[in-house]
Amino acid sequence: MISVTLVGSGNVAHHLANALSNAPNVVLDRWVVRTPSSVLIDINTKFSEKFDEPSSSQIIILAISDDAIADYSASLNQSDALLVHTSGSVNLHHMDKKHRRGVFYPLQTFSKNKPLEFSSIPICIEALQKEDLNLLTALADALGCKSRVISSEQRLALHLAAVFVNNFSNQMYRIAHEITDGARLDFDLLKPLILETAMKVQDLSPYQAQTGPALRKDQKTIKRHLKQLEKENHRLIYELITKSIQQTHGK
Amino acid sequence: MISVTLVGSGNVAHHLANALSNAPNVVLDRWVVRTPSSVLIDINTKFSEKFDEPSSSQIIILAISDDAIADYSASLNQSDALLVHTSGSVNLHHMDKKHRRGVFYPLQTFSKNKPLEFSSIPICIEALQKEDLNLLTALADALGCKSRVISSEQRLALHLAAVFVNNFSNQMYRIAHEITDGARLDFDLLKPLILETAMKVQDLSPYQAQTGPALRKDQKTIKRHLKQLEKENHRLIYELITKSIQQTHGK
Repeated sequence: MISVTLVGSGNVAHHLANALSNAPNVVLDRWVVRTPSSVLIDINTKFSEKFDEPSSSQIIILAISDDAIADYSASLNQSDALLVHTSGSVNLHHMDKKHRRGVFYPLQTFSKNKPLEFSSIPICIEALQKEDLNLLTALADALGCKSRVISSEQRLALHLAAVFVNNFSNQMYRIAHEITDGARLDFDLLKPLILETAMKVQDLSPYQAQTGPALRKDQKTIKRHLKQLEKENHRLIYELITKSIQQTHGK
Repeated sequence: MISVTLVGSGNVAHHLANALSNAPNVVLDRWVVRTPSSVLIDINTKFSEKFDEPSSSQIIILAISDDAIADYSASLNQSDALLVHTSGSVNLHHMDKKHRRGVFYPLQTFSKNKPLEFSSIPICIEALQKEDLNLLTALADALGCKSRVISSEQRLALHLAAVFVNNFSNQMYRIAHEITDGARLDFDLLKPLILETAMKVQDLSPYQAQTGPALRKDQKTIKRHLKQLEKENHRLIYELITKSIQQTHGK
């Protein structure tokens, strides 16, 4: 049995609380939330507004904003617990060194209202001691997740890569939405294509999966597309990514 | 029963041939392929290398390259068949006007080797006569697909939007792949995130689904990311899409 105290009330905290409280071999001892009214799920655990009593949990998970992690870890009394944060971009050493420290970073995009198969999420773990790595591996296992040992430096690269596949792909969808709106077309028409584009790279590499006018160097279509785009910023994005595709494919 | 002659041997032709030959209420009379050895699937139909005999099919589908459509339609003898192409970017009127003309554009990305649930694909149809629209609607129905009547002009916009959600999103995956490779990380770690990013906009709009440093105007992270990126072109793309996200969200 692994006992956990969870701190935070954001999207990651909500999904973690839900997964922890449903996992076999895990006890969620306590959920520390500054504003209990911000909790949107119904789970059976002890709530507290402040971390004001000694924790007997084996692991304390700080699912709080990046900027708050260093100060929060400094404000906590030293204990036997392994203190981990869930951030993609905060170095393990930013936590106060009086603690046993680690990282438990679920690589996924979370929305409070959107249910998610937690077991499909890869967990990037990091710790200073072998036994702590084992404990975090066991926690990931209990949640049904695959885990990998990833250094703080690698985690930074992964976080940057995640911005490209998540935030930037999503902005491509957004620009497409503006285009369909402008032509009085239903954005729904693009949804199967969006899904298949993501499905394709589950099996093929993005290099192998590429198609389209940039790859074919189809100047006629590229020119027409640039003419169709009304916004200067969209034209610049079109030109730059077209160039990037052509550089990737050595044309 | 709808009878069809299919022309072409590319990715779209392969997937269409497969779907047509498996659909109830459809007969694939003939598949015209210049190089029969390029056919990769085993289906029960008559093959011919040239369109050299009068067709008794109700519909002739030209699943050939954009540039070949006009000439091919001119070379065909006038018949009772409805002649349609499958292109996102060729105007209906580019086909020779001696024919009854239409468009049957499946909005999806196709790879020869990758099976696909054809019935999930929206079909954009266009024709000059009501009865021809009805025939194309019936064909889409027989394939289990939803169809929409889309004008040639709207189809151009849709094709442009498809470049953003498909080719350009895929290039975001590719850049992420370069980043993970550079940090000796397995690209597989990003696959659940890629899939969830696409899943999210099946329910939420891309506007609602956006998260990340650009949206939060988190200058510290944005600066660090720009410093991490080694390629000039990747930095330019990062800056431009970050700016685009901030414009979208009025920040």
